[in-house]
Amino acid sequence: MVPVYSVVGRSNSGKTTLLERLLRELTGRGRRVGTIKHHRHGPVVVDVPGKDSWRHKASGAETVLLASSDRSFAIWDSAGETPLDVLAFRYFPTVDVILTEGFKAGAMPKIEVNRQALGAPLLCTSADRLMAVVADWDTGAPVPHFGLDDVGPLADFLERRIAADHIQTEVELLVDGRRVALDASTDTVLARIIRSLASNPYTPEHAPQIELRISRRSS
Amino acid sequence: MVPVYSVVGRSNSGKTTLLERLLRELTGRGRRVGTIKHHRHGPVVVDVPGKDSWRHKASGAETVLLASSDRSFAIWDSAGETPLDVLAFRYFPTVDVILTEGFKAGAMPKIEVNRQALGAPLLCTSADRLMAVVADWDTGAPVPHFGLDDVGPLADFLERRIAADHIQTEVELLVDGRRVALDASTDTVLARIIRSLASNPYTPEHAPQIELRISRRSS
Repeated sequence: MVPVYSVVGRSNSGKTTLLERLLRELTGRGRRVGTIKHHRHGPVVVDVPGKDSWRHKASGAETVLLASSDRSFAIWDSAGETPLDVLAFRYFPTVDVILTEGFKAGAMPKIEVNRQALGAPLLCTSADRLMAVVADWDTGAPVPHFGLDDVGPLADFLERRIAADHIQTEVELLVDGRRVALDASTDTVLARIIRSLASNPYTPEHAPQIELRISRRSS
Repeated sequence: MVPVYSVVGRSNSGKTTLLERLLRELTGRGRRVGTIKHHRHGPVVVDVPGKDSWRHKASGAETVLLASSDRSFAIWDSAGETPLDVLAFRYFPTVDVILTEGFKAGAMPKIEVNRQALGAPLLCTSADRLMAVVADWDTGAPVPHFGLDDVGPLADFLERRIAADHIQTEVELLVDGRRVALDASTDTVLARIIRSLASNPYTPEHAPQIELRISRRSS
């Protein structure tokens, strides 16, 4: 699975600004980065010039996708929050790392941003999988600290984490929309079976990326 | 695979209006419908109140997803057009049918909208997989015709097509982003193997929906 790290912090701590700078730094190094932001208050409103897509959604379409040759977007309804690992599986098949803004209550390792001027302690403890702090003071948290402008060293730290957290298994599996972990031998066997079936008649020279869905049997 | 049908027609023929009425009719009957619109001219511009997501995209994120408990959206970059069957596979795992606005050059069965006042013949021939015409005149095309207000009978026609075009195979497979057809026996064997692996330790009573990705082996 692609590594997911959450940038968290109190209001006005500078989460978005840090993310912008990290994105520029990491993409400048050739990394493909995705982001997820938690939208907490009020409906998701997207204003589309041309409006046809919007008319589709307003008329009852569950998912609307606007496709072009270089950039596309989709808007869809869901019942309840979708876990970060499922969002990562479904919508980010091609990135090297995903950074989220928010999701303090999520299960992913976290970087917390804080400023002395806020006059408030960290939100996270190590129980929240805090892995680094970005701040202009020593918060005392037992994790590496980076200054508010230390984007290069923070990116170095993240690169090492990405390498360490890199996909341990070949197969990622969702069953009815929930992730299921496979033991190492099942993982290897399943990957071999599917690769061999999928490579006939294609016999590609490289190990391909394979995506597969098995539908509910209609009764 | 979920059936995909394309609503096509000349400019100002009333494609969006027909789609809106069809969406209301089909969702009113309990169908889950997705739509895809082709964005032909200029960049996809989405204006997001709050703007943080937009700042992520502008800073180099390849995919940005804004998640809430009931509605989410994603925007992503791609190199070239993504085929309709791949979009259907990746972004519409839960709908019964997908209607597209446009995609006359695509491979999907088509409904063409036309009006006598346009003074122009149909865009499609039967070589374009034309399956129905919605018009206020007899275009002479050898397919069923529906009046511009005959949304109920058109929805009945589509329901019969959906039933006839319903998933013939259990397994849908993409290899390196291209759909690969499996023969019936491979389909059955693969579905059985994966169901049996995925059902342990879950042993669900029903046939679950299974999504699976096998990553490129890192060298």
